[in-house]
Parts: sequence; C-alpha cells; structure tokens
Amino acid sequence: MDTKKSLGSIGDELYKLISRLFPICRSITGNGVRQTLKIMQEYLPLQVNEVPSGTPVFDWTVPNEWNIHDAYIKNMKGEKLVDFNDSNLHVLNYSVPVKGTYSVQELKSHLTSIPDKPEWIPYRTSYYQASWGFCLSHSQLQTMKDDEYEVCIDSSLKPGSLTYGEYYIPGQTEEECLFSCHICHPSLCNDNLSGIAVVLWLAKMLSTQKNRLSFRFLFIPGTIGAITWLALNENKLNKIKFGLVATLLGDRSSFTYKKTRNGNAIIDQAVVHFLKFSGDDYRLVDFSPYGYDERQFNSPGINLPVGSLTRSQYGQYPQYHTSADNLELVIPEKLEASLNAYLFIANILDHNIVYVNQFPKCEPHLGKRDLYKAINAENDQETELRKMAMLWCLNLSDGNHSLLDIADRAAIPFELMKEVGEILEEKGLVKRLESKLY
Amino acid sequence: MDTKKSLGSIGDELYKLISRLFPICRSITGNGVRQTLKIMQEYLPLQVNEVPSGTPVFDWTVPNEWNIHDAYIKNMKGEKLVDFNDSNLHVLNYSVPVKGTYSVQELKSHLTSIPDKPEWIPYRTSYYQASWGFCLSHSQLQTMKDDEYEVCIDSSLKPGSLTYGEYYIPGQTEEECLFSCHICHPSLCNDNLSGIAVVLWLAKMLSTQKNRLSFRFLFIPGTIGAITWLALNENKLNKIKFGLVATLLGDRSSFTYKKTRNGNAIIDQAVVHFLKFSGDDYRLVDFSPYGYDERQFNSPGINLPVGSLTRSQYGQYPQYHTSADNLELVIPEKLEASLNAYLFIANILDHNIVYVNQFPKCEPHLGKRDLYKAINAENDQETELRKMAMLWCLNLSDGNHSLLDIADRAAIPFELMKEVGEILEEKGLVKRLESKLY
Amino acid sequence: MDTKKSLGSIGDELYKLISRLFPICRSITGNGVRQTLKIMQEYLPLQVNEVPSGTPVFDWTVPNEWNIHDAYIKNMKGEKLVDFNDSNLHVLNYSVPVKGTYSVQELKSHLTSIPDKPEWIPYRTSYYQASWGFCLSHSQLQTMKDDEYEVCIDSSLKPGSLTYGEYYIPGQTEEECLFSCHICHPSLCNDNLSGIAVVLWLAKMLSTQKNRLSFRFLFIPGTIGAITWLALNENKLNKIKFGLVATLLGDRSSFTYKKTRNGNAIIDQAVVHFLKFSGDDYRLVDFSPYGYDERQFNSPGINLPVGSLTRSQYGQYPQYHTSADNLELVIPEKLEASLNAYLFIANILDHNIVYVNQFPKCEPHLGKRDLYKAINAENDQETELRKMAMLWCLNLSDGNHSLLDIADRAAIPFELMKEVGEILEEKGLVKRLESKLY
Repeated sequence: MDTKKSLGSIGDELYKLISRLFPICRSITGNGVRQTLKIMQEYLPLQVNEVPSGTPVFDWTVPNEWNIHDAYIKNMKGEKLVDFNDSNLHVLNYSVPVKGTYSVQELKSHLTSIPDKPEWIPYRTSYYQASWGFCLSHSQLQTMKDDEYEVCIDSSLKPGSLTYGEYYIPGQTEEECLFSCHICHPSLCNDNLSGIAVVLWLAKMLSTQKNRLSFRFLFIPGTIGAITWLALNENKLNKIKFGLVATLLGDRSSFTYKKTRNGNAIIDQAVVHFLKFSGDDYRLVDFSPYGYDERQFNSPGINLPVGSLTRSQYGQYPQYHTSADNLELVIPEKLEASLNAYLFIANILDHNIVYVNQFPKCEPHLGKRDLYKAINAENDQETELRKMAMLWCLNLSDGNHSLLDIADRAAIPFELMKEVGEILEEKGLVKRLESKLY
Repeated sequence: MDTKKSLGSIGDELYKLISRLFPICRSITGNGVRQTLKIMQEYLPLQVNEVPSGTPVFDWTVPNEWNIHDAYIKNMKGEKLVDFNDSNLHVLNYSVPVKGTYSVQELKSHLTSIPDKPEWIPYRTSYYQASWGFCLSHSQLQTMKDDEYEVCIDSSLKPGSLTYGEYYIPGQTEEECLFSCHICHPSLCNDNLSGIAVVLWLAKMLSTQKNRLSFRFLFIPGTIGAITWLALNENKLNKIKFGLVATLLGDRSSFTYKKTRNGNAIIDQAVVHFLKFSGDDYRLVDFSPYGYDERQFNSPGINLPVGSLTRSQYGQYPQYHTSADNLELVIPEKLEASLNAYLFIANILDHNIVYVNQFPKCEPHLGKRDLYKAINAENDQETELRKMAMLWCLNLSDGNHSLLDIADRAAIPFELMKEVGEILEEKGLVKRLESKLY
Repeated sequence: MDTKKSLGSIGDELYKLISRLFPICRSITGNGVRQTLKIMQEYLPLQVNEVPSGTPVFDWTVPNEWNIHDAYIKNMKGEKLVDFNDSNLHVLNYSVPVKGTYSVQELKSHLTSIPDKPEWIPYRTSYYQASWGFCLSHSQLQTMKDDEYEVCIDSSLKPGSLTYGEYYIPGQTEEECLFSCHICHPSLCNDNLSGIAVVLWLAKMLSTQKNRLSFRFLFIPGTIGAITWLALNENKLNKIKFGLVATLLGDRSSFTYKKTRNGNAIIDQAVVHFLKFSGDDYRLVDFSPYGYDERQFNSPGINLPVGSLTRSQYGQYPQYHTSADNLELVIPEKLEASLNAYLFIANILDHNIVYVNQFPKCEPHLGKRDLYKAINAENDQETELRKMAMLWCLNLSDGNHSLLDIADRAAIPFELMKEVGEILEEKGLVKRLESKLY
C-alpha cells in the first residue's frame, strides 16, 4: 500500500476493523455472521437478531443455516491442492457437504476459475440451488492433470436461523433515515467490509450528537436479509423517509451515486449537493433494479427512496468478487473520506430546516441588528459569500423552501447556509417550521 | 431502378398496386377517386362513401364534382404540343372547361413550368377558385413561339359527390387508433400512392390478428376529405385515442416523424420508441399547423393527437409535386420497411399493457419459479438483457407505468419487454390492469 | 464621444435631460432629489410625494433628511485640495457635519480612493451609520504629505422627509405594469440618470396611447424608497402583475436581463421574447437577492414578479460607482434603443391577448374570406411567414394560449403575430377572451 497513513486516525481504525473481520467465512446465514456481529458489538451496542429457518418472508422463506468446517481437494498422493484454510473463497458458498473420489472430468464441472486473471480466486455462491463446488485460481486449475482426486466439503445445511444486526438512534422525531449494508460476503474487503466499517462508525458518531431525525442501521445478509427485515418490520416503514445502501467505500475510485427509483427524492438532492461541493470528480447513475439491496427497498410495494453511495460501481472494478478484493485494495484515507461523506450527508438531512422569514415584506434592516458584523469573515470574498447566503435565506424562507433547497438555488454550500440560518434564527429574523421534518 | 427486388415479397405487392393506380387522374372528387377505391376493394373490403356536393361540413361546403375527359394545346397546324393523355399532370387540377384559340401571351398566363427542372411537369391545383391552366415542362414551354394556339380542356364541374373510403377493424375495446391517407393526387407516387398502399396493407394485416384496440383507416381527399369525415363523424371522435397520417413512404430517405400538437402524446412516445430502436437515422419534427391532414386532426376544436410518419418531409424533396415523383422514385424495399414500421407501431399501441406486480413487496423469488430458465436466451448478453427486462417490468409494474413507459425507462426494446411481460403474466407474477386501455 | 448623433432625435433629448440632471447632488433624501423631480416635471406631470422622517415603513424608519452646502479639505496654507464644488462625489454621501483640523493619519481613515484607477473618484455612502468621509482620486491622495489638514463638511441631517416621484397611466383595466428607477445617486450617469431618462420618456410615450393595462412609474431613492412606497401602498400591490427595474441603460453594452425570483413569469417571457428577436447579443441572468430594488419587489412577503433590464450588469463595468460613470459613458443612440426596448416590451404586455378561435373544428375556409389576400406581403418569404403566423394563431387560440405564447411556440416575432391576430379578429375568425388580462 503506497498510501501514507497517519497513525491513530479514524481511517486506521476503520482499516483495523476490516483486518479483523477479513479472515471470517461469512455467508447469508451461519456462525461467520454471528462472529462478525460479535466483534462489531465491541464498538457499538448493536442488537443481534436471529430469524428461524423456515420463516416466511414475503415471497421467500428463510433458508436453512449453512456452516462449514473444512474443505479440500487432494490428489491421490494425499497432497492438498485446494484448501479452505488457505482462502474461504475456495468453497462455493452454501455448498452441500460432499466427500469422495471424483474423476478429473466430473470434478472439473464443479470448479470455477478466471482464465483472464490466472492468479485470482473467484467468489461464487449457490444459495437457493443445492450444489457444491470449488473456486480456484486458473493456474491451480491448470496443474490438475491426474485422473482422480479426493474431494471433501465438510459443511452443514440445517434448520437454524438467519442472523442480522440492527442499531437505532432515536432523534427528536420518529422520522427516520436508514443506512444499510450487507454482511454476507466472506474474505472480500471493498465489497462488504468497507461498508460494514463505515456504517458502524457512522452509527458511533451519530449516536454522540443530538439529532432531529432518528437513524436506523442495518447489518444484514444481501437480498434475503433485506427481505427478511422488511417483512418483519412492515409497520416501521412509514417512518423511513429515505436511506442509503453502503458498500464499496474503501477503494481509490471517486464517488458513484446511484439514485433512488424516484430519482428526485430528498436523499438524491442531499447526496448530489454533497458531491457537487466535494471538489472531486463523481458519477451519477440512474436507478436500475439491479445491484445491492436498493433493489428491495425500491421495489414497488416497499417504495422507500433509498440510493446507494459507493466509490467503484457494483461489478465494475476488476477485483470485484475475487480474491483480489483484499486488504491491499482498501485504503484508510479513502475509508475515512467515505465516512466523512456519509456523516456530512446525514447532517444535511438532519439539519434541513424549513425557516419562515418573520420580516418577509422587503428586506429586514440588517444594519440595525448588527447582522453585517455577525456574518463577517476572515476575508472579503468569504464575507461576501456569507452575505449572499443571508440574503438568499431571507428571500426564500417563505415556508416552501428547505435550507437545502436554498443552498442549491444559491449554489452555496449547505454548511454555510446552515450557519447563516442559525444566525438569522438567533436574531429573530427567521423561525423554524416545526410541524414535520419531511 | 437499381434496387434488387425479391420476387413475391410484400414490397413488390405494394409496388404493383402503386403501378396499377399510377395512371389514374385523381382529384378531390370525381371518377378518378372512385376508380382508385374500386381497385383497392380487390384487396380489402373497404366501404366507399359518397357525400353530395353542397353538403355543409363545418366552415366548408362539399364542392361540385370535377371530371375530365381530355385536354390539349395544339398549334395552328393541328399538332398537339401538350396532351392530357401523355400525363394527367398537364391539366391544372379542377380546371374549368375551356375551348378556343388564344394568343400566345394570353395562353402563357395559364401555363406553369419549373425553369430549374426543365424536363419536369409541375403539379398544380385550383380547387376553390374557378380557373383553368396547363402545367408543362420548361423545355416544352420554350418551344412555344407561335402567335396563336388552340386550347381545349374537356372537363366538367357539376353537382355530384365527394367520394372516400373507410375501413374499420373492431377490437376488444372501442378505443381507436386512426390511420389516414389522402387519395386526391393524380399520377404522383411517393406523395399519395405510397401512403395508400402502405395503409391498405396495414389494414389487411391488422385485420388478420386479434387486437385490443379498434383500428380505423381513412382513404380521403386531402383537406376537404378530412374536414368532411370529421364533420360527419363527430360523435365518434371521443373513441379515437391517437393516429397517424401516412404518406411519402416509398422513397429512399430515412424516417421523419412530425409530432402531434401535444408533442408528448402516446403516439409520439410509440413512434419515437420505434425510431430509437430502429437502428436507422431519423428526424423528429415539432408539430406545425401546416402539411397534410394532421392540420385538421390537431385543430383546436378537434384536438386529436395525430402525428405523421413519413420518409422524406412534406415539400422537402426535389421531386415533390412534379412528374418526377413517379414509379422510379419509390422502391419496393422501402415500401415494405414503411409497412413494417407502421405495423410495429400499431402493435406497440395495441400491446401497451399496464401490468400490476402481484408480489410488489421486495423482489419475488424468481429462482423457485424457474424464471431464470424461462428467460434464458442463446447468449449471455441476450440473457442478461432479458433478465434486466424482467426486473424492470417487476419494479415499475405499480399500476402507473405502461409496458412502453417501462421499455423507455429501461432503454430496452418494446418487443423484448412485451415478451418478458407475457412470461411474468403466465407465471402469475403480474396481472393486467384491464379497466381502460388509454 | 465618437458616436454620430442625429440632431433632434429622441436619443438626444434623453441625453440632454441627463446632462441637466448630472450636476445635482442627489441622495436618498434632501433637496437634490426635489430639484431632480422638479426638472422632470417639466417633461411629465408626475406627482411628488414627501414622507416625513420617522415614518415607520415595514422593518425600517424613514431617516432624517440630509442636505449639503459645501465640503473641502484644505492644507494649512489654506489651499483647497479636495472641493465638493469640483465633484459632489468627493463627500461620503450622508456624511455628518464636521469642521476642524486633523492629523494626516486620522484624516486618512476617512478617505477613500481607488489605487487601480488613480484618476477616478469613488462614490461611497453611509446612510444608516453616522460617519463622515471624503472620496478622492488616488493621485490626489498621494500628494497629501503634510502633517495636518483643515476639514469641513457643511451638511445637515435633520427631521424632514423622503421625497419621491410617481406617475400613473390608467388603462382599460386596473391590472398594472410597474416601472421603477432609483433617483438617489449624485453625479453618476449610467447608474441612475439613464434609468430616470428612459422611464420618464417611456411614461410620456405610453401616456399618449390607449392601453389595456395601467402603467405605474416610480422614481424613488434606492432601497428605502422602494420599502417606503411598498409599505404605504400595500393595498395596491394585488393590482401589479409584473414590472421592471430600469437603470444602466446608456452604455455601449448589449442588454442584460435579470429574471424575476419566479424565473418564469410573464415579464420574463416578454423580455426574453424581445431579446431573442432583437438581433443583438444579450445575457440572461437568474434572479439573485442582490442588486437594485428588484430585491424588495421580489421579497417573499411582497412577491411581485419584477425583473431588471439593463445594458451593463450591476457592479460589473469598470466605471461603476466612480466619477468615470459620467456624460462620456452614456450615448444618445443607446439611450434611445433602451427606450425602444422598454416601449416594445410594454406593448407586448399590453397587447398580449388571448384569442378564441370561433371556427375551431378543422381549419376555417381562408380562401372564401380573402384571408390569403389580407396577409399578402411584399415578398414570398414574408407572405409565407404571415401565412404561418395566421395558421399558428388559429391552431393555438383555444383559450389557453396568449398571443405571446403562440409567438414563442411558432418562433415568430410578436408584432407579426399581433398584426395577424388583428386581421383574424376583423374577419370574425377569433374573438378576445376579455374577462381578465393576467
């Protein structure tokens, strides 16, 4: 890793957590998930829930629990060629148990490699179709020239439960912002662990401040976890005003924002505002019903405006779903910048006040209230910007524009608009419209 | 004609019909129209209607019927210089009868030629102002150096009727799609006969399939025919949901679509969708109150969203309204492709179903219904496209989006969306919203 | 001035008025304003109003009246270095009286110059903070090397009144268009006097024609004048449909239009239409709550759609608020063109009729009413344009489109559409919708 790290930074903390979670073999159910959530509880008192196998969840059923103890391919001399202990990606995730001797032909129909990237092990799953298999590097595969091999997958697939984590920070209102990340990928860093680490820290940080919004954090297995949570919490959905699905937050790419199905929801407005003023390049992608759990949140019967803010795009970086999505790919600085972005957006949403100008007829007399002094800044350019922010806030605070609306129209950063709004509020020139946040 | 024709193709059939109709001297009334419709009845049992001269139709009156038997200009030696039997374009359409000897000066005020195209005969009319005249090539005109000429137009202009053809295909609902073409041009191929042939065949083809929409086909003289039909059928107009005016469909140009006055009607959406996925170049033109009978259909008191899909644009090709708009200009292949375009658009409109997802909460479990198999295609790219079509269809089938809306948003061809919709319907995942088509 | 002037032109009249008003020392109150309005009354019988100091106007209070008789800086030899009689810009506008001997250090904290433009005197004010000061050229400042200077500002700041001018032209309806300009700047030509001259002449010209709209003209001190007028005339505001703030109308720049807060008001539509067909370059600027009195008119509790049409932009030309904004900067030809623009826009607004087609079903028969003759023009291109204007007017006169809407959609100049509308009205094809103009 060629990136300079400042010891003790939050980026390093995020990276350390990822390093601890990396070796665990996670899946959509099983002890890997439990172990992961247990380590996370050292950082945040999140609630861990178990939903029994067989529970009906909308059109789906919680599956049997999968656990794995060992797996290997040996040649007939007893030498292990492929060993689960070297990388948990070697086993097709959710493989049924198998033990026996197989001809090389039969075995090969159970093997997956990536010819283009001969040193990387692919990551594959078969959750809903009973199957077994191994994933291995193409160079490993090419050495397999014997006639027969001994194969063992010591897994179990039995009634148990689906495990997920949840954390809730009550705010002044019950209106909620949701952050969700999947926790079902085994030793993959950017796709999974970066999201877990960022959302965990986001929850830690938001829990230390007083919020108007409530915040909910879900650490759930992909697809079935989202479906399960939504099915079991339908009565809570009307409180959720918007949300983000978090993952792919540690690599070197600039940000990608995939919009909600609505495309023009407040979460879209907030993220786009953040990106516009971030000073960095970014990509905006329209919603499509594919990708991560935004698929479920944006389904027509759930209809929650949930976007997804990532760095690289789903499926669009070479290391995606391979052993190269490892501790080399994610960088403390980028993790920290991702956390800051999420925190910034959460704060926009939390502070997106609708003010009402108390002196709406013409401009109020700013001089007599020392407002020009109150907004004075270090240099003329900054003072001018703050003056414009103040005039825009007064001009558009007619009860129909939120602070974010005003910041967008004025092309002024939200944080400056917020600061100026607070000065105007203190001086009695504007009052908050408090009835409802969103 | 340098185009290769495959014998027996529909293009050839269309071309053959045009060839049969080409020699007839049509006008807005008279035996030429009757003869034309009679030949068309050999192909389709269309209804022929006669509206008596003098019938008031909105602000207009059905004019006297015009018929012509012969016309010529002879020099004083008795040689015919201009002869109606050579080309019916030679006579100013709707000329009053005339017989006598004229000085060359007086005669020339009744002659029209195109100096820029000295070999072409122009096509001119004078329906509503009693007048007579001849059209001739500029090179013919330049030979006329005698002092006097003998002139004869053996025409009649007497009470009779306006003749038009109509065909109606009842569908499952009374909601209607209208196709209209003018039948008043004499020996002109692209402007007139190409539209007649395409619409006739379209009617033939749509009459052999089961449709949800009803379809109406009008074969009418331009302007006065449209006004007459609309005036006599006002009680039917509320059934007409949209329509197209068809002409200029046989030349080599790519398609031009002139939008409805509304500009954003369903017919506009359907035609634009077709053009986008056609793989060919095309032109979109905003509505203007000039051109063909879309002028009447889009008038404020009629207000039907009727566009016009042509190849060349009205008045924008050199041969327009000249003797060069002849059998050389139109091509079987282009006629057939035009017919296919109209049929494709009719089918989009007919199949533009609103589905309602029966499992709208999260995604339904596709695997357990073998849906991934059902959409399997020959290659991975096609399978992926069909999977995306399926996910889009499920995601947007909330009762507010038609299949065409979904296809547009997903940027997936309508026919693929339709196919996938039918699979989902068969599997019980979606149901049709049947109350009303449009 | 290198511009050729045609003697006796309106541009020269405007320029002459500006020349007469130029020497007067105006401020937001005082005799300079009275003197200015008195000269203006020679041209137009405008009403002059006096509002007593201390009158509460919304969040403000009408200030004490300021008058000035003399001001200078002398060296200790008694030589005048800075003299109010040379330029009234030398005194900080609204300076409190001062008389005494000051050290050069103390004096310099009261002096303002422009180092970048060493020969120009800046214009500065201090209306709401008791203060005194001098403005001078940087080269003057640099000669001041003595230890002490004698300073005198012989001004008075006492209860009196705020003076403004108003003129009202009643129309057929009470619906109003407002034109406003500020009259508080001393010897500055483009910023102030150009607006005064143009609006005065606009009023003269509109008062000689019969209008459907009523027109109101305000000649008011900036900010406090607008606030005062609005506070004292709240009951009239519902009559005002739109307006323009006029200034910066004499320089060589092409036009700049600053839109209303709404951004899509009828005044925006009218000005943009004018600019599009003006044949000149122009700039469109979105509303911002800074600039001239459009700030007050567009405040949330007043909410009048008032834009601002200027040549150079507020604060964006080098001579802005300096002694270089003088009689050299403004040009008769540009003043006259500005007046013509304002007059053109006023006439668009006044003639922006909604017609209703009386023959809305299909096109009316134009030939039988000699309409093709009625619209005949000198050349074919012009005749064709007039024919299209007529067809568009008939097509869109459904009660939902004004003449300006139709002109915009047809991309035809308003004046042509107006002319054609009048022909159609005369022929009985359309009737005016008279209930309400806007």
